[in-house]
Parts: sequence; structure tokens; C-alpha cells
Amino acid sequence: MSENLKICDIGEFGLIERISKKVRVDKSVIKGISDDTAVMEYKGNNYLLFTSDMLIEDIHFRREFSHFSIGHKALASSISDISAMGGIPKYVLISLGLPKDLSLEFVDRIYEGINSTAKRFKVNIVGGDINRSEKIIIDVSLIGEVKKKNLILRSGAKKGDRIFVTGSLGGSIYRKHLEFLPRLKESKYLVKNFKISSMIDISDGLVLDLYKITQESKVGAIIYEDLIPISKDAKSLNEALYMGEDFELLFCLSLDGAIRLIKNGKIKGLTKFSYIGEITDKRYGLRIITKRCKEKILKPKGFKHF
Amino acid sequence: MSENLKICDIGEFGLIERISKKVRVDKSVIKGISDDTAVMEYKGNNYLLFTSDMLIEDIHFRREFSHFSIGHKALASSISDISAMGGIPKYVLISLGLPKDLSLEFVDRIYEGINSTAKRFKVNIVGGDINRSEKIIIDVSLIGEVKKKNLILRSGAKKGDRIFVTGSLGGSIYRKHLEFLPRLKESKYLVKNFKISSMIDISDGLVLDLYKITQESKVGAIIYEDLIPISKDAKSLNEALYMGEDFELLFCLSLDGAIRLIKNGKIKGLTKFSYIGEITDKRYGLRIITKRCKEKILKPKGFKHF
Repeated sequence: MSENLKICDIGEFGLIERISKKVRVDKSVIKGISDDTAVMEYKGNNYLLFTSDMLIEDIHFRREFSHFSIGHKALASSISDISAMGGIPKYVLISLGLPKDLSLEFVDRIYEGINSTAKRFKVNIVGGDINRSEKIIIDVSLIGEVKKKNLILRSGAKKGDRIFVTGSLGGSIYRKHLEFLPRLKESKYLVKNFKISSMIDISDGLVLDLYKITQESKVGAIIYEDLIPISKDAKSLNEALYMGEDFELLFCLSLDGAIRLIKNGKIKGLTKFSYIGEITDKRYGLRIITKRCKEKILKPKGFKHF
Repeated sequence: MSENLKICDIGEFGLIERISKKVRVDKSVIKGISDDTAVMEYKGNNYLLFTSDMLIEDIHFRREFSHFSIGHKALASSISDISAMGGIPKYVLISLGLPKDLSLEFVDRIYEGINSTAKRFKVNIVGGDINRSEKIIIDVSLIGEVKKKNLILRSGAKKGDRIFVTGSLGGSIYRKHLEFLPRLKESKYLVKNFKISSMIDISDGLVLDLYKITQESKVGAIIYEDLIPISKDAKSLNEALYMGEDFELLFCLSLDGAIRLIKNGKIKGLTKFSYIGEITDKRYGLRIITKRCKEKILKPKGFKHF
């Protein structure tokens, strides 16, 4: 039956589900496929975090983009994943696929971008792999760690929790997707001062990533159009809802925590936290209250690879 | 000056050297770039090992190869790297680049190859990343661990040590590069029973990988043509010396250890160990004694990506 199916027929998420059904892990694995990073037993009171991101020329970037920024983005998107677990990044491997006639200057600049971001976030570049390929490929594998009590999964959101995002959303394609700063400082502040029930980084768009939280947590959610912090770069509300690669944090916490977070106001050195909605019962699904106070169902669409 | 240089002008090793000069790591990193895997502080008496390998369609394999074998090879080559450190593999991430019109059956078979090898070597598949790309790309990132006392670096070979290899060499391109078994059992046996001073897995060819040991250990080496275990698949001595992807272990140990290893003979369930030469003074370089008892200098050539 399935012999004639192609990848584009079942899509990225169908493919991930298909693969994850076939994979078995031992009990040292706390969380495998289905969160921002894998989580494994580590030393003492810490878990090990493990994630990888692949950037491919003409899919994720074009050769005329800032080479420095391409390097930055490759590492920063993995740091964003570690941040979304409440953890800190530690060790990275960089695997490169490079056309043989590529200029050394290009590779140097990619590495300057990687090095600069590694230094800023105290990540150790410990190795990698270099291969010949037609298109430029950058695959980043990042190990992080998290205190067991600080670990935040997608699956912990509860009915009545309030939903927040960092920074502003939308229009990332015009600039931010290459220049964003992963919200590591914000994540550290949150896990230190609050009990965050669920968190994800927005890579596929607010709606699709909120949908993942509701799926993993078996809840529903409602957000308010009026409360969504739309980026100056965004050309419409839709870009804030559905455009991928904001790399902001989307998280949930209890009402008490939410009140305290709002009262704290803007924290020096951190980006703003915006309250955007609430976790509801599962059967409620995913909805938005528009500026005109109408309730609309949100379809889980966003950036898709296939 | 360097602006007009291309990657093919300095080659893979020139590029690695260029990159590693720019990278800084903290003191938790025992070994960064320049061994089979990175080595970091871990828990108690163990180090963390970390390695990645990228396979790209039309560079490392063609689409008409056995899909099962492509999956197997992707994971097995990283397990081979962990084995060469004296360690055991634990957690793997699989990043895929896939053409959107690729059949699901193809992906299923690749994953069957990965899963089968993961099961055999008790590796947990904990996640990954799926992207659209024109060519098939499989990037494997593998975490392993090693008891501190068992860690084997490339840099530990000493003058007078004897040189051994597992299995047989050459002709891998005809079959073995897709079907090889990483020498994890052999590595476990060696670290348990002997003090191995230096080890590497043969991925770029015997001569080039022995050269890496001599460079890292600041020694020379001499091998004997008569003693090299040439594979039945090899069409010439040159294929045993220079053809890449044997994925056998090349290792050194003291004369006492060498005598004991030889006396032990063939161990049940393990491939054979063959004595092939000795570590010499650095100024001696890399040489071979031919069947006709002539001494010849070996040039460090082998598989090169650029």
C-alpha cells in the first residue's frame, strides 16, 4: 500500500511520527523524539540535552546572504532549542558539506559567525566533519545540560495556565531569522524565578508551535489578537501567527506565576515577556479572539519542509 | 592574500587545521578537534565522547545502493569512531535531508538499516531533524562514553610500540564500505586486557591513518608488506594501503603487550588481530619494507574529500 507514497504525501510531521514509532530507547532516555531536544540521564542532579539542526543552501539560506550570519544562525538555532528546555549549551560539533570551488574566505566568514556566537554563549566547539558536496550544508549538533528541577518539557501545560512569548513575532524572514539572539538569558531568568510548566522555541510559527504544546500536553489554548506582540518587521498579523523562525520562547505558567511575571515588568538586559492567552480544556482546540471580539478556530499551519 | 584561495587549494586537512586554530575551548574539554571523537569531562570515572559523520548522495553513496546499507553505514561509521577511543556508543541523533519526491519506502529502508545497527550495538536513537534537500543527506551525531582509564588517543604511540590492525584491508569500495561491522567488540577486548597506547579507525586508508597517529604522537613508523592482511576483495597491495573506508582498528601497544596479544591467537567471536610493524623515531618518517626486503618511504596519501 505505502510503496507508492512519497515524503510530500505525509509531510514532515507524518514522517517524524512514522519514524518515532519504530525507535526503541532504554530507560536512561527521559525524552526522545518530540521535544526541542532529547533528554537523557547525566551526572548527579543534571540531565544531558542533545539536539541537532541542519541548514542547507537554497533551502534555509542563499549563498549571497551574509556568510557571518549563516554561521551564526546555524549555532544559534540549536542554542534556542536548549534554551527552550531550561538548559544551557555546552559542546558543539560542526559538520560541513562544501563545494570544492568555494572560496576559503566564505568558509572563514561562516566560522567567524559560528565562533562569535559560541564565545558569546560559552559553547565549546569540539570537532566536526568536512565533506565535499554541491550545496553548502551546515549541520550543528549541540550538547547541553539542565538541572533536573529546571527541565521544561512541551508536555507540562495545564488548563488555566497563562501563555507568554518573549520579544515580538512575525516578519523574521526579512532580517531576524539570520540575526536573532537565542533567548538563553530569558530562559535562565524564567527557570530561576518561576515554575514554567511548558516551553518551546518558535521555529515553525506561533500557531504551529502552540499547537505542538497543546498536543503534547493534551490541552487546548486561546490567544488574544490584541495581546500578540507583532514585530515592526511583520507586514500583517498572519506573519506573526504563521511565519517561522522567530526563535522566541513560547511558554506557560500558572495564574499566580503569571501575575508575578507581569508585575515584575521589563527586566533590565532581557527582552520583554508578553501575556498572550490561556491554556484551556483539550476539546476547546486552538482559538483566537480577534480585535472585534470574535472567536475563531486556528488551524495548525505554519512553516513546513515538505 | 587568501581571498582568492579555494577549498580545493588547501584540502580537507588544511581546512581542519585552519579552523582548529580559531577555536577556543574550556578546561572541561580533554580533546577537541584532531582525534576520532571529542572527549569531555563527564560523570565520575567516565569521559563523554562526541562525534558526527555526514553521508551525502553521489559523494558517499548512490541512490541505487541498498537503502538498508546506507542507513547502516551512516550509524556504523560513528560507532567505529567511538570504538577507536576505547568507548561505547550511547545516544544518536539522525539529521536527514530528503528530496520531497523521494518514496517513503526508501526512507523506511534507510531507517531499518539505522534501527537494526542501533539495536545490535545498543545505541538509543533519541531524535533528529528532517529537512528538504535536493540530494539525500544523512548526518549522524553520536554520544558515547569511556572509562577514564580506558581512553585511547591517537597521540599516545611510543617508539618501540608494535602496530596492529583488526581484520583485513583493501577493496572496501566493492562491498565492505556498506556492510562493515564496527570493531566495538574488539575494542572492548583490547581495553579490557591490554594497555593500548594509540588507536584510530581506518577510514582514509592504512597509510594516511597511520600517518595521523605518527603526527599526533610525534613518532615515525615502519610496516612490513608481508604482514599486511590484504582483503580478498582487494585487487592490489595499493588498495590495502590507500583505499579508504576499511573501518578496521589500527592500534599500537608495547612489545610485552604485543607478544601476549599474538600468543592469545584468534579469540572466539572476534576478528583477527595482525601485527604489521613498529613505531620508530620521528625522523624515520613512515616507511614500508617490501616483500623483496627493500625499504621505501610511504607518502601520506589516501582518501581525500577535496
